[in-house]
Amino acid sequence: MNDFIYHSPTKFVFGRGFVDRAGSEMAQLGFAKVLVVYGQGSVIRTGTLARVLASLDSAGIEYVEAGGARPNPEVSFVRDAIALARKSEVDAILAVGGGSTIDAAKAVSFGMPYEGDVWDFFAHKQPIGECLPLAVVLTIPAAGSEGSGSCVISNDAEHRKLGVSGDVFRPRLAIMDPELTFTLPPYQTAAGITDMIAHVCERYFSGVGAVPLTDSIACSIIRTLIDAAPKVLDNPKDYDARANIMWAGTLAHNDLAGCGRSLSPAVRAGGWESHALEHELSAHHTEIAHGAGLAVLLPAWMRHVWRNDPQRFLSFANDVFGIEPADDCEPHDEAVCDAVTAAIDELREFFVSMGMPSRLADFGIESHDIDPMLKTLLLNKGEPFGAFMPLTMDDARAIYESAL
Amino acid sequence: MNDFIYHSPTKFVFGRGFVDRAGSEMAQLGFAKVLVVYGQGSVIRTGTLARVLASLDSAGIEYVEAGGARPNPEVSFVRDAIALARKSEVDAILAVGGGSTIDAAKAVSFGMPYEGDVWDFFAHKQPIGECLPLAVVLTIPAAGSEGSGSCVISNDAEHRKLGVSGDVFRPRLAIMDPELTFTLPPYQTAAGITDMIAHVCERYFSGVGAVPLTDSIACSIIRTLIDAAPKVLDNPKDYDARANIMWAGTLAHNDLAGCGRSLSPAVRAGGWESHALEHELSAHHTEIAHGAGLAVLLPAWMRHVWRNDPQRFLSFANDVFGIEPADDCEPHDEAVCDAVTAAIDELREFFVSMGMPSRLADFGIESHDIDPMLKTLLLNKGEPFGAFMPLTMDDARAIYESAL
Repeated sequence: MNDFIYHSPTKFVFGRGFVDRAGSEMAQLGFAKVLVVYGQGSVIRTGTLARVLASLDSAGIEYVEAGGARPNPEVSFVRDAIALARKSEVDAILAVGGGSTIDAAKAVSFGMPYEGDVWDFFAHKQPIGECLPLAVVLTIPAAGSEGSGSCVISNDAEHRKLGVSGDVFRPRLAIMDPELTFTLPPYQTAAGITDMIAHVCERYFSGVGAVPLTDSIACSIIRTLIDAAPKVLDNPKDYDARANIMWAGTLAHNDLAGCGRSLSPAVRAGGWESHALEHELSAHHTEIAHGAGLAVLLPAWMRHVWRNDPQRFLSFANDVFGIEPADDCEPHDEAVCDAVTAAIDELREFFVSMGMPSRLADFGIESHDIDPMLKTLLLNKGEPFGAFMPLTMDDARAIYESAL
Repeated sequence: MNDFIYHSPTKFVFGRGFVDRAGSEMAQLGFAKVLVVYGQGSVIRTGTLARVLASLDSAGIEYVEAGGARPNPEVSFVRDAIALARKSEVDAILAVGGGSTIDAAKAVSFGMPYEGDVWDFFAHKQPIGECLPLAVVLTIPAAGSEGSGSCVISNDAEHRKLGVSGDVFRPRLAIMDPELTFTLPPYQTAAGITDMIAHVCERYFSGVGAVPLTDSIACSIIRTLIDAAPKVLDNPKDYDARANIMWAGTLAHNDLAGCGRSLSPAVRAGGWESHALEHELSAHHTEIAHGAGLAVLLPAWMRHVWRNDPQRFLSFANDVFGIEPADDCEPHDEAVCDAVTAAIDELREFFVSMGMPSRLADFGIESHDIDPMLKTLLLNKGEPFGAFMPLTMDDARAIYESAL
């Protein structure tokens, strides 16, 4: 159990119809005027935004709106929202949406009090100072951003998608209403579940020895998602399955699944290799959903690196899929290889069973698309990068190529 | 998944030697003068208190001391500490110890700003208002009080041991240093582990249907403890085992193991039947350690109530011990009975293997001791009480008698 700091101060208010509590919960926190940040289309079409705004009205809370946050949210949207927040002198931000909307809102929360440009935090490691308080109404369980200290923003002009980490901008409040997810399309449901599983795997394969309690909790999260996925794809209004998925998404990324697994207590567990590879994909091809990219790249990464610690992958195979090697064997035995590759295949097949792609070609990606991604990958991550097995650009190329 | 509110805002700073960070962490929170609350003997003898006070000195934080908190902390100690805190005008409280010390400190934190007597909160359900901020250096993992919204205090004059719940007095900060537990005697180690398992069980058997994610996490906590216990009893300085036990103790009681399992979002999951029965034991016989009492009464309660929901106990048997009924069977089949009683026996044998008692007679309790306990049990809980199966005083008598 390596040293760690775990600080997940968000108040989670979780229940049927709880979207209508947004106003009263915000009022309890003492907010008088908020910037409401939201996405495009579905949050309006489903009536969710209207319900949230009505609850703010009922609670006597004034608001201004910054709508139109894109999946893979872009920095220009954030800059405009910051300007509006400053002009309107809001005292808090309320994000209504999924990870993209929440991350945009997070960037506003720490960009607003900063005199420079918000992209400085992402590109130049400007330390985050003050933050405006942030609350969330979660509509798309996927990124776990409602409870995480993570924020990822794209910069189209630079073809870069970068993240910052910090406990200070974790939301104060997250309203979690599984009924809002009944209308989530199957593809987004599946991409979200993939992202959640990846969040756990990044911490599970962090290059650190076993941590029994944390590893067990991590596998609980993954098994819960694997069990719940077919239920909601079969019956989108299965409340309990939707609810377990929603909560799993939060716990997959609030650092609970990484406690004791980081190399330094101030740093999140994991080398985040799959996410680094996927960010380049989505940065250059902004229409690719993050979870869909991970469905291809997480198994590809696993196939490339497992021999660096077969025992770790055997533990994963056993705890998640109940797969065990034929009998006691040495680390380089064929039986180990079979067990590990069986587990990686089972994970990939699970993603595919949910409708996720299995190859980069499914996105129209071809081998000539790899070089631009490697170029920005090198710029963003350096070489080598990663915690489970240090990856060079040659390794990254091999992983992308194997995934084509 | 029932509606729930989950708010565990404590910052956990977990690591080797982190006891020496107490001062700097308190300084980061802006505290200038604190009341240090601690117990008796071991915290001084081990040098832990001295290290904490030295770190406060290094950080320039003034302090006054309230030492002598007893296991099963008593309200007169709390009253004296409140008087000292007021006179010294402290701005925060730092508990250095285990659950007893922390609970005493919690009572000071919400008793200090209150004009009446602190026992009002326990006996007369006075709503808790303001609280002084509270921080913890944990020395005895057991009660999970470092991360919980729970506080239990005894009143010897009234032979009562009562609890209050509230998110508002959860500690701001908990310093968790497993090395401090190397010297914890085997009996206290075992009593602590028993208390942790009971905390999970109270939520697992809360009379609510299965919640896959929460149930899986709950069983992860229990299995981790069962695996780690023999390691630390064999080698008290097994850091990783001590660390997993310490973290399991926190997660067993910060409500993570009950998310979705309560009857109302503002109320903790579970009927807390075993704890209610044990509180009477410790209230009337103040030398009995809480965990040791639970080691006897939790299995006794289980044996009394399992037929009310055999399926729930079968899930427990399977997820914790890997016990399954011989084949598919009806709820009242002998095979179910065998599987459930096997699991309850295995749990009891685990407690005994750690050196915990198996019968009330091991404490010198006899049948004539039952009536006084039932009298205050009725006063404290009413009739019937509990969530898994409503218990009358006749049920309680039967459970105590079966445990003699």
